Amino acid sequence: MTVSTITSGELLEALVDGLPEGSVITDRDLIESYRQDYARDPDAGVPLAVVRANSTEDVQAVMRWATAHRVPVVPRGAGSGLSGGATAVDGGIVLTTERMRGIEVDPVTRTAVVQPGLLNADVKKAVAAHGLWYPPDPSSFEMCSIGGNAATNAGGLCCVKYGVTTDYVLGLQVVLADGTAVRLGGPRLKDVAGLSLTKLFVGSEGTLGIITELTLRLIPAQPVQSTVVASFSSLQDAADAILAITRLLRPSMLEFMDSVAINAVEDELKMGLDRNAAALLVARSDAPGPYAANEAETMANVCRDNNATEVFSTDDPEEGEAFTVARRFAIPAVELKGDLLLEDVGVPLPQLAALVNGIANIAAKREVMVSVIAHAGDGNTHPLIVYNAADKAMTERAHIAFGEIMDLAISLGGTITGEHGVGRLKKAWLPDYVGEDVMELTRKIKNALDPNAILNPGAII
Amino acid sequence: MTVSTITSGELLEALVDGLPEGSVITDRDLIESYRQDYARDPDAGVPLAVVRANSTEDVQAVMRWATAHRVPVVPRGAGSGLSGGATAVDGGIVLTTERMRGIEVDPVTRTAVVQPGLLNADVKKAVAAHGLWYPPDPSSFEMCSIGGNAATNAGGLCCVKYGVTTDYVLGLQVVLADGTAVRLGGPRLKDVAGLSLTKLFVGSEGTLGIITELTLRLIPAQPVQSTVVASFSSLQDAADAILAITRLLRPSMLEFMDSVAINAVEDELKMGLDRNAAALLVARSDAPGPYAANEAETMANVCRDNNATEVFSTDDPEEGEAFTVARRFAIPAVELKGDLLLEDVGVPLPQLAALVNGIANIAAKREVMVSVIAHAGDGNTHPLIVYNAADKAMTERAHIAFGEIMDLAISLGGTITGEHGVGRLKKAWLPDYVGEDVMELTRKIKNALDPNAILNPGAII
Repeated sequence: MTVSTITSGELLEALVDGLPEGSVITDRDLIESYRQDYARDPDAGVPLAVVRANSTEDVQAVMRWATAHRVPVVPRGAGSGLSGGATAVDGGIVLTTERMRGIEVDPVTRTAVVQPGLLNADVKKAVAAHGLWYPPDPSSFEMCSIGGNAATNAGGLCCVKYGVTTDYVLGLQVVLADGTAVRLGGPRLKDVAGLSLTKLFVGSEGTLGIITELTLRLIPAQPVQSTVVASFSSLQDAADAILAITRLLRPSMLEFMDSVAINAVEDELKMGLDRNAAALLVARSDAPGPYAANEAETMANVCRDNNATEVFSTDDPEEGEAFTVARRFAIPAVELKGDLLLEDVGVPLPQLAALVNGIANIAAKREVMVSVIAHAGDGNTHPLIVYNAADKAMTERAHIAFGEIMDLAISLGGTITGEHGVGRLKKAWLPDYVGEDVMELTRKIKNALDPNAILNPGAII
Repeated sequence: MTVSTITSGELLEALVDGLPEGSVITDRDLIESYRQDYARDPDAGVPLAVVRANSTEDVQAVMRWATAHRVPVVPRGAGSGLSGGATAVDGGIVLTTERMRGIEVDPVTRTAVVQPGLLNADVKKAVAAHGLWYPPDPSSFEMCSIGGNAATNAGGLCCVKYGVTTDYVLGLQVVLADGTAVRLGGPRLKDVAGLSLTKLFVGSEGTLGIITELTLRLIPAQPVQSTVVASFSSLQDAADAILAITRLLRPSMLEFMDSVAINAVEDELKMGLDRNAAALLVARSDAPGPYAANEAETMANVCRDNNATEVFSTDDPEEGEAFTVARRFAIPAVELKGDLLLEDVGVPLPQLAALVNGIANIAAKREVMVSVIAHAGDGNTHPLIVYNAADKAMTERAHIAFGEIMDLAISLGGTITGEHGVGRLKKAWLPDYVGEDVMELTRKIKNALDPNAILNPGAII
């Protein structure tokens, strides 16, 4: 039985037969909500079916079937991806792990074994019950899944001090293209036996295999943080303050918002942010005891030395959290101004001001509004391109700006994506960034592991 | 011109012609010192030549020539490896990067661009001049190269808090089997563009490519440490104390020595260690200011609560360093008792006592002395098998014990190598540990990147 001699009805029947009842969705209306992720790719295909896997065995059954019939499979976590990594493919399967939400926490080894569909926020909550902390915190942590976090090597706000997802993934169970399930790594803090396969699968965006279980490294609960908020009338002053802070110490958060983002947030939250400021920094320290306040005071002084117009400092965790919430709220607040194209470019820290200035030039040239927010301590920015999707010419200009911002980042020694992934939206820029030799190396690994190109085809490559 | 129709003289001539004068060593006596690394593999081959590369271009020239003539190439850093990863192959080339020792430190982005032959200690020294710190610290840090550290994903003493080599490698330049040089990653703290290739090459032991440049992440200088030394009359008590400490806080060091190691060190250093103790722990804290002393006091109390017979605590950095030196000196001190087979197995922390007890049983059964030292906080142990190489039967028993210790680690959910690598000495155990499916996955990647199997053949696979 090959794909050329089988009807799609027979194909589906073979799939349904191999899975628990209720796993396969073919209803057109239900499928609709699985066609796109948060990138809202207008070119998303119409899948043959959506499979809601309950177990590793289910995923294996899907991949065996997919290999036998050469059907593309797009893995999906919570669908909160911003680069179109989970965009459906015509005639393929969307395989969602949303039902796989188990977690077992081992406070003795400080590890957790987690299923991929569990939300990041639920991982944090489950381990907090044991006095432990899973640091990576994408802004979307309340609605993104831990499996998706691993597939994209997701970042967040605390990464400036605590690193990204890959730093906390000790082990994985992965289902390969042919349905084989392998266990890579495990609850061992040091393990160099064989190639670093765990690390290869983290960030592979579902193109090499499907993650069905993760073993996460945990650390003791984060100490109480002190917070500094500083306004600047000059972008360069803010950039200089960022560099000066990261030379002196390791903040537990160092975030940036531009004037547009400040005003959009203030419109909604009315918390007294300086509407005339060109830039706002929110920095935190979680050094133990009074050292948090000391580090906050150091950061406040650095901001003053760099001509901050207003500096506010607090040891009150709730007050500090309010500013973090404001920063996290920047994307939804800006989104209220129009349709959004969400960028994710990064540069070496000294190029931050050049990047933000260059983005302003692109915005002016393309006549779109671009608001820049950033995980400033990492040099990872999220330019938010605001446009009117009903205006065809403007939509086109917005997409041109989207590409020009990546070109600009590359020209400044930066990356086209710091934490969202390449997916489908950014793959046209990947060769420009990494070069043809690295693309060839990438294709060699992809072909070796997925010779029929059925795993998330069209993503990355 | 193929390997079948060319003489070895013509082969060598083609190699010498493509490299700067003095790069190729063919003198038998000189070659001798490049045949083995510290694993002293008695089965080491006799290479055709040793190439001392001066640049990435030299490495490219060697690999182009090696691909054209199907000649195996064994990459070598400082030759301090303990698993035979740099054991020479008959008729092959040993390619040493020992002459490539450049470093450029950028204190603004807190990164360093380093050539692979630079010693770990020299990296530390160069970055310390800028108030910065490169944490990974193998016990051999004064004689191991940073390229070898990356090739093996080396660990060390501070890893319990600060992670291993891969956590500090942001970018690599790698020469592939066919001589292509690729740049992976770079001085960007967050970068998820494409597959995690940098991470794949770290720990690949020269089987996928040859590292010719590294971009390292640096952090601010380590604060002054407080130190606790505790003796225990029971191994279980020491193991319980280790678990209790790691549940409470993150020590900057947590090391273990057994009775044999304590006595071997005391024989040489005469520093007043308790010769009757079954176990000695050396723990440190680098929390800021008085918090280091607080954490040290907490750890001292935990040791007392777990029946430590003697607990000594000091805030004096030099005094604390003396105990770290004693721990680092354990291997050379035990080596004075006989020939050594150096193991490197790791287990999840709760299995530490079971591992050490099981090792004692193996030692008794095989009539060899085994001293256990450990990076206890990581569950990473170094059983030192002491034997007399002149005694053939004993040598055989020592090698049996070497394998049985790995079998034991696997049975306890542990790894066959925590930080030394698989190399040639441990590859027979790798399939038992990772399983046939993971071996197949490993072979697929190896074949895709090195189809002629000329890169460090015989290592890992």
